[in-house]
Amino acid sequence: MTDAAPMRGVLSPVVTPFDADLQVDVERLIRHCRWLLSHDCGLAIFGTNSEGNSLSVDEKIDIVDRLIEAGIDPARMMPGTGCCALPDSVRLTRHMVERGCGGVLTLPPFYYKGLSDEGIYRSIAEIIERAGDSRLRMYLYHIPPVAQVGFSLDLIERLIHDYAGAVAGIKDSSGDWSNTKAMLERFPGWGVFAGNETILLDTMRHGGAGCISATCNVNAPAIVELYRHWQDADADERQSACTALRHRVGKYPMIPALKATIAHFTDDPDWTRLRPPLVALDTATVKQLGAELEAAGFAMPGIAARA
Amino acid sequence: MTDAAPMRGVLSPVVTPFDADLQVDVERLIRHCRWLLSHDCGLAIFGTNSEGNSLSVDEKIDIVDRLIEAGIDPARMMPGTGCCALPDSVRLTRHMVERGCGGVLTLPPFYYKGLSDEGIYRSIAEIIERAGDSRLRMYLYHIPPVAQVGFSLDLIERLIHDYAGAVAGIKDSSGDWSNTKAMLERFPGWGVFAGNETILLDTMRHGGAGCISATCNVNAPAIVELYRHWQDADADERQSACTALRHRVGKYPMIPALKATIAHFTDDPDWTRLRPPLVALDTATVKQLGAELEAAGFAMPGIAARA
Repeated sequence: MTDAAPMRGVLSPVVTPFDADLQVDVERLIRHCRWLLSHDCGLAIFGTNSEGNSLSVDEKIDIVDRLIEAGIDPARMMPGTGCCALPDSVRLTRHMVERGCGGVLTLPPFYYKGLSDEGIYRSIAEIIERAGDSRLRMYLYHIPPVAQVGFSLDLIERLIHDYAGAVAGIKDSSGDWSNTKAMLERFPGWGVFAGNETILLDTMRHGGAGCISATCNVNAPAIVELYRHWQDADADERQSACTALRHRVGKYPMIPALKATIAHFTDDPDWTRLRPPLVALDTATVKQLGAELEAAGFAMPGIAARA
Repeated sequence: MTDAAPMRGVLSPVVTPFDADLQVDVERLIRHCRWLLSHDCGLAIFGTNSEGNSLSVDEKIDIVDRLIEAGIDPARMMPGTGCCALPDSVRLTRHMVERGCGGVLTLPPFYYKGLSDEGIYRSIAEIIERAGDSRLRMYLYHIPPVAQVGFSLDLIERLIHDYAGAVAGIKDSSGDWSNTKAMLERFPGWGVFAGNETILLDTMRHGGAGCISATCNVNAPAIVELYRHWQDADADERQSACTALRHRVGKYPMIPALKATIAHFTDDPDWTRLRPPLVALDTATVKQLGAELEAAGFAMPGIAARA
């Protein structure tokens, strides 16, 4: 990856389907990845909205291997690799780089709270040093509303300075545009991804790299078109439509709602399952959401109905 | 374990020593476990203060096996087994039960926030069902200041009702005595452990099981004596002395301070190391803490100097 272009565009934290025994349903996952790629949406597997933190390291390694075996291009993947325990983050990062993944998305260790920047710096530095591979392209994953631990601007600057190239960008899921804007202004040309598509246009207008957003799981076509046409006259109109859909789905708990939407448009109720501690929407709510989306004229073009 | 008595008394979340490469130093860990046991203090390995969440599942399995091989009694162990990912929690719990551990201490899954009681219930229920072993004695680990996810009284009641025997007790590290008291009153005879020794006497006077406290790593002798003599005339005096030592150490960040204290009394500076994201105290602070403890007449009776 040394000379590979940094990742750009629109990626989806790919939702993870489970079977009745709560095991990962890799066949359904492959089908969903193919749908996303068919709309030119990249694959941020093992993100927050993938229930990535409910999967073991062994499961993640097995899944990525099976996706690649199925012919899915690892260059389009940005798997989540940041765990609480340093050896887990190192093992995952190494594996993803060896398999040719275009990048990795790395949470800071998130169990201990009130961490110093120095402690987070050392965690990231140890991962990079121990991965020991110049092909590594790490995207920092800043999501303080969930992880409660994040990357300050000073810490980012230090990491970029010490690990230029390896520290390739960030996903800012702070939910705070002023923070994303501050990153874009302080680190021009660096790979700043909006944490959701409601600020995709703003992010692109300030020199950003794209967005990595939960809602891509269902609305990838429109979000990718917004990315492609961000300099066109109808960009604001496209942004409004994407934002409206986000809010329509986001009225419900996001991960169950995404799965319910896929279940609706594939006519496949097995898609509604989540692994504990997350809980599926009840059947009535799944129906209601499906009806609301149909009424709004929403569709998932090209999605295959139940196999 | 079906007929084994529930665990009672004083346990230490055993701090974990690391070598220069940040690998677990099992020999030093064994020595520290032996010191704790010599004072009749049980071993809550892989707790928060053990940097347990900075260890991989493989490391935890290897460590517990090596402690047992070294002759340390698993019946005195209450290893931490609660992870973000269900398969990890199941694997650890199964292993600890199979190895004969007296109990396990189980965090709820802690990455996702704003969980429903139902979601946490299903997580714990799946662990118990999948462990599938009547010898399991699970102690719930309630530490919302760190995990940000915890066990409500109603959820505890439901778990005790549905898994009587298996759900054997709780460590309440809420830092809120009114919460511990509410548990003691609502679940009489159940295994409620104080999360630190400053409320050990109150906990015993309300029918509790003991305490599991970070400070046991250095002050086990006095805390165990307080537990043994809680009904004696000098109990309040003992409590005050234990509390004072806790506050003396707790002026500093707790985990680095515990390691610095052990480093001081074993004359072994390697003990000061932590695994990122946690950071050791600087040398001057280590010296200052040691001097303060000496000046206060504190000692670690029977601790062996550097091997």
